[in-house]
Amino acid sequence: MSSLFGVLFRVMTWGESHGGGVGVVIDGCPPRIVVSEQDIQVELDRRRPGQSEIVTPRKEADKCEILSGVFEGKTLGTPISIMVRNQDARPEAYREMEAAYRPSHADFTYQAKFGIRNWQGGGRASARETIGRVASAAVARKVLAQTIPGFDIVAYVRQIHTLEAEIDSRTVTLQEVESSIVRCPHAETATKMIELIQTMRKEGNSVGGIIECVIRGVPPGLGEPVFDKLEADLGKALLSLPAAKGIEFGSGFAGTRMTGAEHNDPYEFQGGRVRTKSNYSGGIQGGISNGEDIVLRVAFKPTATILRPQTTVNVAGESVELAARGRHDPCVLPRAVPIVEAMAILVVCDHWLRHRAQNFL
Amino acid sequence: MSSLFGVLFRVMTWGESHGGGVGVVIDGCPPRIVVSEQDIQVELDRRRPGQSEIVTPRKEADKCEILSGVFEGKTLGTPISIMVRNQDARPEAYREMEAAYRPSHADFTYQAKFGIRNWQGGGRASARETIGRVASAAVARKVLAQTIPGFDIVAYVRQIHTLEAEIDSRTVTLQEVESSIVRCPHAETATKMIELIQTMRKEGNSVGGIIECVIRGVPPGLGEPVFDKLEADLGKALLSLPAAKGIEFGSGFAGTRMTGAEHNDPYEFQGGRVRTKSNYSGGIQGGISNGEDIVLRVAFKPTATILRPQTTVNVAGESVELAARGRHDPCVLPRAVPIVEAMAILVVCDHWLRHRAQNFL
Amino acid sequence: MSSLFGVLFRVMTWGESHGGGVGVVIDGCPPRIVVSEQDIQVELDRRRPGQSEIVTPRKEADKCEILSGVFEGKTLGTPISIMVRNQDARPEAYREMEAAYRPSHADFTYQAKFGIRNWQGGGRASARETIGRVASAAVARKVLAQTIPGFDIVAYVRQIHTLEAEIDSRTVTLQEVESSIVRCPHAETATKMIELIQTMRKEGNSVGGIIECVIRGVPPGLGEPVFDKLEADLGKALLSLPAAKGIEFGSGFAGTRMTGAEHNDPYEFQGGRVRTKSNYSGGIQGGISNGEDIVLRVAFKPTATILRPQTTVNVAGESVELAARGRHDPCVLPRAVPIVEAMAILVVCDHWLRHRAQNFL
Amino acid sequence: MSSLFGVLFRVMTWGESHGGGVGVVIDGCPPRIVVSEQDIQVELDRRRPGQSEIVTPRKEADKCEILSGVFEGKTLGTPISIMVRNQDARPEAYREMEAAYRPSHADFTYQAKFGIRNWQGGGRASARETIGRVASAAVARKVLAQTIPGFDIVAYVRQIHTLEAEIDSRTVTLQEVESSIVRCPHAETATKMIELIQTMRKEGNSVGGIIECVIRGVPPGLGEPVFDKLEADLGKALLSLPAAKGIEFGSGFAGTRMTGAEHNDPYEFQGGRVRTKSNYSGGIQGGISNGEDIVLRVAFKPTATILRPQTTVNVAGESVELAARGRHDPCVLPRAVPIVEAMAILVVCDHWLRHRAQNFL
Repeated sequence: MSSLFGVLFRVMTWGESHGGGVGVVIDGCPPRIVVSEQDIQVELDRRRPGQSEIVTPRKEADKCEILSGVFEGKTLGTPISIMVRNQDARPEAYREMEAAYRPSHADFTYQAKFGIRNWQGGGRASARETIGRVASAAVARKVLAQTIPGFDIVAYVRQIHTLEAEIDSRTVTLQEVESSIVRCPHAETATKMIELIQTMRKEGNSVGGIIECVIRGVPPGLGEPVFDKLEADLGKALLSLPAAKGIEFGSGFAGTRMTGAEHNDPYEFQGGRVRTKSNYSGGIQGGISNGEDIVLRVAFKPTATILRPQTTVNVAGESVELAARGRHDPCVLPRAVPIVEAMAILVVCDHWLRHRAQNFL
Repeated sequence: MSSLFGVLFRVMTWGESHGGGVGVVIDGCPPRIVVSEQDIQVELDRRRPGQSEIVTPRKEADKCEILSGVFEGKTLGTPISIMVRNQDARPEAYREMEAAYRPSHADFTYQAKFGIRNWQGGGRASARETIGRVASAAVARKVLAQTIPGFDIVAYVRQIHTLEAEIDSRTVTLQEVESSIVRCPHAETATKMIELIQTMRKEGNSVGGIIECVIRGVPPGLGEPVFDKLEADLGKALLSLPAAKGIEFGSGFAGTRMTGAEHNDPYEFQGGRVRTKSNYSGGIQGGISNGEDIVLRVAFKPTATILRPQTTVNVAGESVELAARGRHDPCVLPRAVPIVEAMAILVVCDHWLRHRAQNFL
Repeated sequence: MSSLFGVLFRVMTWGESHGGGVGVVIDGCPPRIVVSEQDIQVELDRRRPGQSEIVTPRKEADKCEILSGVFEGKTLGTPISIMVRNQDARPEAYREMEAAYRPSHADFTYQAKFGIRNWQGGGRASARETIGRVASAAVARKVLAQTIPGFDIVAYVRQIHTLEAEIDSRTVTLQEVESSIVRCPHAETATKMIELIQTMRKEGNSVGGIIECVIRGVPPGLGEPVFDKLEADLGKALLSLPAAKGIEFGSGFAGTRMTGAEHNDPYEFQGGRVRTKSNYSGGIQGGISNGEDIVLRVAFKPTATILRPQTTVNVAGESVELAARGRHDPCVLPRAVPIVEAMAILVVCDHWLRHRAQNFL
Repeated sequence: MSSLFGVLFRVMTWGESHGGGVGVVIDGCPPRIVVSEQDIQVELDRRRPGQSEIVTPRKEADKCEILSGVFEGKTLGTPISIMVRNQDARPEAYREMEAAYRPSHADFTYQAKFGIRNWQGGGRASARETIGRVASAAVARKVLAQTIPGFDIVAYVRQIHTLEAEIDSRTVTLQEVESSIVRCPHAETATKMIELIQTMRKEGNSVGGIIECVIRGVPPGLGEPVFDKLEADLGKALLSLPAAKGIEFGSGFAGTRMTGAEHNDPYEFQGGRVRTKSNYSGGIQGGISNGEDIVLRVAFKPTATILRPQTTVNVAGESVELAARGRHDPCVLPRAVPIVEAMAILVVCDHWLRHRAQNFL
């Protein structure tokens, strides 16, 4: 069940880094949603390798094909199958990984779990797997846009290594984010980040950082009591991304240093509806959206692939030195921005359907 | 589907703060596991109100009854139903919440979602709901203890407000934790934490903090590729706890300030198996356990209930001042420690069964 | 996952014949449905043992208690826990089953599966387990009654052994069914059926038969393409009943002897909506309801418990003769009628929510 | 959730009659199972149109492609994506169905459900959808063959219209079945069936019938108590097939005319294990396999497509006469035989994994 996500808007992704391709099947999409291959392509292009000088140079057009579920430009309510063929696969570049486990990669754990692994390019653990997530979220985005007036989502790079940007989550726009190849909407910090990434590439080293995401226009009531709280499902979604090692909502870890009197968000009646004066809760209370901006931050560890000799063991249990070759992404965050959006969208769309399902009276 | 958790070891919890009681049904427990009401009671007593002077004085024996699924001291493989009756319910103490929404509680969001809510004691959003989690996890703990040699789990309070304790996750024991009423195994810091909580109670204020949890003896291979990564499912589990606002694994947010060369965990062959020299990964790589200690930290916001006047709105949309009365837990962390363990155990047990299910050859 | 049923209106049942009791938790019930213990009790009384001279004399009041999820007479949207205590348990009457397997019972297969079984009264395989189904369906019935105008369901005994009754499914009423202790609304046949059952009791033998069920007022559109067709989910629901060995819809097995020209149901426009002139399809086409009466028939094998000596083997693999003692139900069909209704209701309610969930635009 | 089937061995199918293609993704397949495209092609060829003179002449090579999840001839444990491109699509042949609803087809019910439908060739309701079922079952067949010694399954046409064949389910072989183009292993009856089908084709009429399936070598213990009984899950699987209107197990509907003393299957110890002398139970007792042959029969209604004028209504609600043109399959049973096997295999494989998952001690 590893590759299935969602309760009502369900996606099943498939594919390895090297193989016939990657893709996704969406089951449960509402009918009569207007969507096209172009709508999906726009989002895939945002996560595509080779889009700028600071990301991996793997050459993939990542051209998507809708194989089912859409008829005369609209969804049918039946499964939507979307496929992207692999093109620039170079299995030979990964030959030494057949025998040795790359440190902090999934090579050893996959082998331990399954007793077999596709060692070419990371197999199923490759970031290429996220294509299915982004493609299905492009459809979910259409569902939300066509059924929730005012829905909006923006993610952006907030921090890389020790470089932090001050960004106002209430006002930042997609255009500001996309105008920067590092997807940090604070121009000055963005410049430093790009320099740092280029230095890392030269040194064969890598860096991580923090992506912040704000979701606007979510009506009150999404999320479920107890296990499927909105933080819980968003948390699961985002911690399922490669290299993600932490997540926080609203005040998050910093909020643990406040008292209740400081942290509580007072209610007020404003513009015809119940609002909160502050938003330390990050738009979620008791696991359910309260109508305020949902704000979350995801921590990504530095990329495990570094172009330096590392000590490790091989399949036979012998100590070996491994010098990674091949294509190298010194910082995954710029390309992870649309993926963070994608996972958040899948969760919100699923909960939107779930909320309507139970509360239709 | 809000109250169902797990794929193979499935639990469905039920109950409100004020009502007939609270409980859980476990479906999918392996047969022939030795378990008794006493095994469950031990864990319930660790989360029970009134257990020390720093927690809520609500008087509940929290006496559990196994209603099905256990026969002559062993599990049958059929559903295990466990119930705890409510005793010290005081609905009248919550009468003002019938009309007004307590800030940063779930009152408003439940009303917005369902158009109805049980306003007595927080209803389903009450921490009393966690009894079912702890009771079912007590059974899961038995499954793990009887099928994984060397399995062990310890959670403890790492930080309250700005008071942080230095604790070595590799060596800390349950006994050390339980010897402190605040469940912080660093005696000096624990004393300060207790003082702070007592000050908060006097001031009608509250504090949050961080609980750390270490899970030992998990064999390599637990967790799934893609969506059901071990971090993802642990993340969901722990972010579903009341007041949880963040989670991190291994190096977590701090790891974003390291480079890949520093952060990668080199493999070595030790004691007959593959180990890592460092553990920045927190025991999980590619979403799958690698055999090292799994280490995670959960951020809890300060308790929303404070005994001070707060501005809010009522059901009619009018601005009102609310002065919370009733029983008050100025810091939930000491009682949250066994609950954090419980959720981690439920995830590990479920993934243990899932791993065996797919990899039985 | 054996004890969980439904996708959106989910029920988890628990309990054995001999033990603390039996019950069910409903997760996903819409909020603000008016329901009481009395509504549930009415249905439980229809399946209760001891209700007439032709059913098992086991004495159980089967008094239900709602433990959660209902507040001031309305559902909260949170889990509804319902419990019935066991009373007239007589474990000693089943002592010989500890060692020997009763023919055509679940004794051997449970032992083979789990390596353990509660041999008292059939344990989890007892028909007592259906209390949870009936109780949860009583709530689902309220959901349907309060959201689908014109919804109605009637089940009845159509055949016992070779005694068949001619009944017009289009006009039969609940009152006609309930006026007969054998729940066959054809008075003359009912009298013969009662005589047959009493003969069987005297002879220590048993009989089976066929229950027909008609569901009226289901709007077009319920059911899903492909796997979750309405016949598929109704089929699963009803074949999960103890002793059920077959099911058919509309023309069923007899329809295999017709040609397409005879069997197709022509459409016509009538009363402002699309209708069919005949109903060989049994109200379902392509797995989806078409607005006509849904008609199905379930085959029940003769009760496995007979009060005659039978050859079997014991746990040690030795050939033994077993003479069943204890309470004996020579024909389960009269009490199975409300249970058939219950399972059909659970399916229709779940699909009603599912349909609304995907098609809310 | 319409297109997802299974709990541990999960398949999600996709595709319409006319569109890019049809396919399936398998999630949860055990790793290291030897499987090839050729293994799948063999099964697809058994259900392929145009394979003999008595089936639809639609020309489809139905060539499958494995896109992921198999590496160097073995399953990886990750999702297996299989695709078949559509070739001989003739949308223009279905133009009149854009406006009018074909009697006893899914045209009206899909429109009523979704407010949109792909009217070309039946869209998602086309029997072409079953390609994904057969392809995934070909993989499941490999799992069973490689993990259960002695596993075997044979399905065959037992009855067409009023022509019934006497077949001994205990001895019939796949070779006997496949030697007949109508897939009835009783030569004399097969000849009459072929004649009848050819007559039906000439007359533009159609017939249905009964397929029987026997599953051998299933160990005792598969199936779950309560809702997921083996009959329940097999029932759901087979009633989800297009045109299926009934199912029975073992003695089935005929068993309702027997008494318990006649119907009970006495146990005996034979060949080192517990056996039953008769098999009225059809290999399943209490919902769990007992090690005997599992025997079931599925009733298929006559094909809804007939080449005769029929009265119906159009989308505007007007009465119209519809004369179906296009390709026509006067009897689906010969091609349904491998599909019946496929669904039974998917259920047995899933329950095999589920049984191992819970009972691994």
